[in-house]
Amino acid sequence: MVRVAVDAMGGDHAPDVVIDGVLEAVARFDVCVLLVGPEDVLKARLARRRYDASRVEIVHASETIQMDEAPAAAIRRKKDSSISVGIQCVKDRRADAFFSAGNTGAVVCGATLKLGLLETIERPGIAIVMPNRTGVSLIIDAGANINPKPVHLLQYAIMGSAYFEDILGKKHPTVGLLNVGEEEAKGTDFVRQTHQLIEQSPLNFIGNVEGKHIFSGQCDVIVADGFVGNVTLKVAESIAEILSYFLKDEMASNWRGRLAYLLGRPCFRRFNKKIDYSEYGGAPLLGVDGIVIIGHGRSSAKAVMNAIHFAKKEVDRNINQNILETVRKTLTRVS
Amino acid sequence: MVRVAVDAMGGDHAPDVVIDGVLEAVARFDVCVLLVGPEDVLKARLARRRYDASRVEIVHASETIQMDEAPAAAIRRKKDSSISVGIQCVKDRRADAFFSAGNTGAVVCGATLKLGLLETIERPGIAIVMPNRTGVSLIIDAGANINPKPVHLLQYAIMGSAYFEDILGKKHPTVGLLNVGEEEAKGTDFVRQTHQLIEQSPLNFIGNVEGKHIFSGQCDVIVADGFVGNVTLKVAESIAEILSYFLKDEMASNWRGRLAYLLGRPCFRRFNKKIDYSEYGGAPLLGVDGIVIIGHGRSSAKAVMNAIHFAKKEVDRNINQNILETVRKTLTRVS
Repeated sequence: MVRVAVDAMGGDHAPDVVIDGVLEAVARFDVCVLLVGPEDVLKARLARRRYDASRVEIVHASETIQMDEAPAAAIRRKKDSSISVGIQCVKDRRADAFFSAGNTGAVVCGATLKLGLLETIERPGIAIVMPNRTGVSLIIDAGANINPKPVHLLQYAIMGSAYFEDILGKKHPTVGLLNVGEEEAKGTDFVRQTHQLIEQSPLNFIGNVEGKHIFSGQCDVIVADGFVGNVTLKVAESIAEILSYFLKDEMASNWRGRLAYLLGRPCFRRFNKKIDYSEYGGAPLLGVDGIVIIGHGRSSAKAVMNAIHFAKKEVDRNINQNILETVRKTLTRVS
Repeated sequence: MVRVAVDAMGGDHAPDVVIDGVLEAVARFDVCVLLVGPEDVLKARLARRRYDASRVEIVHASETIQMDEAPAAAIRRKKDSSISVGIQCVKDRRADAFFSAGNTGAVVCGATLKLGLLETIERPGIAIVMPNRTGVSLIIDAGANINPKPVHLLQYAIMGSAYFEDILGKKHPTVGLLNVGEEEAKGTDFVRQTHQLIEQSPLNFIGNVEGKHIFSGQCDVIVADGFVGNVTLKVAESIAEILSYFLKDEMASNWRGRLAYLLGRPCFRRFNKKIDYSEYGGAPLLGVDGIVIIGHGRSSAKAVMNAIHFAKKEVDRNINQNILETVRKTLTRVS
């Protein structure tokens, strides 16, 4: 059975919401969870709950890294944090994967230091699944590496393709480079160099894509530097929120709108489900030698459950083996 | 009366939609328009229309710069393009402002070359007005300068503040720097240097802001490099579209949804109006020595009309004089 280490102390609503998600996951999927955090706190919380005790094990970690702590310093200083201990479980093969909705930078830093990187990969990247008109697209990197070199983006393209093929189930996915225009000459020197590099690879590269293509469904894997990817992700989330707010505001303003809202409620629910990040679980940290999934700080119990489900899927599919094979195939043909 | 030169050949639906917008504008506002484009084409179109002929003058320009042409080369080669001729009208003081929904890069390049820059401004920047929870915010730069230096972003912050105060009517607007996190240490070297620079100015700087703050209404003027600003803008537009699509799709799927849609139609209309870029007219190109407004390639007649209205407002308020004064005040206190 797949064993997932879960940072019980990560996220804005930890540990309660994390525990809710974990218990939901063990009830629904074929997984065991190592719940990482202060033993006394977790024991007290679990004592009040009904669940299959053979599937949830507490792993003690006395410290918690806060959301706003400087990542590298926190990882160095808090050796017994739930993030460090959880990653160590993967390192020691006590767990097959690690999930945290805590300090993203600390997870990236801890995973890179403890687990190391896959052969030939120089930087890990965060991949985010986004809904689009025809299905989903994957953006990589969403913020692990805000000062990348062009070759890192080639590596992201390779890893993103392998992930898309393997986990999202589409052979030979299209790859695009996020830029300010579609023409090859567009963008900064950095983006133009990256374009050349990916073009020489055997990946299914369709060239530059613009922000508007992320949601049109024309491109499966969208490669960006971590700064741009992170801003994009946060803008996307934020707009979805503000639009819902505007719409609700309009509908609440008179009886006709309120009636329409009541009547349309099932539609609004399905709509919300479609754009709800928690449906897509967490974001895989690709490139580290181990399976690590990062959750949104505001992760709900459902998001935690789905992230655990995705972790299981990645373990079952042996995603890192496939990434390594794709890296080897791709880079042999480039060189 | 304010005289606005309008590129009749700019935008995906030129010249018809541009002419519609122009005739609407002269009917509604106290403006004259110099309609710039091939005389025979424009004469033929206008002959079929009823309008106050004393308010619309055709200015002949034999060439058109296409949307996908390389900007600098096009400006060099097509001396008689509607963009070049229109900007020349401002240079020669035949017009008080210029509006184009054509090739953005060509407008930026042509305006910079022909009109020159305001004193101490080193690069022009495109400012975009976006709706948020409490009103609007201004993003600068949305793509005029994709390789800026930190000092250019300080200049954008100054120009954006002056514009917000003057045209959007809020004294001492807040200024934020778009970054991947709120802490001062976050981001690339470029962003950190920019942070220091703006912090030393007397602007109402609130520090780093994230993508999610653009729509929350916590910040009035959001400063970004042109690459990130451009991606942000296109992502924002694209998401608004895809969300409307998802929602319509859900509502069309059964009778209850369709009925809710019919009933809620006035709400949806007001909602669409709120998020419709055409309500906000075009985007001012700040920093050039003249008033230049850039429209979306897909500008509707309403967008053209609103852009002309905004141009008039900028002329009436003497925006460049105010920018110059803010620049002087701000930079004296920095140095």
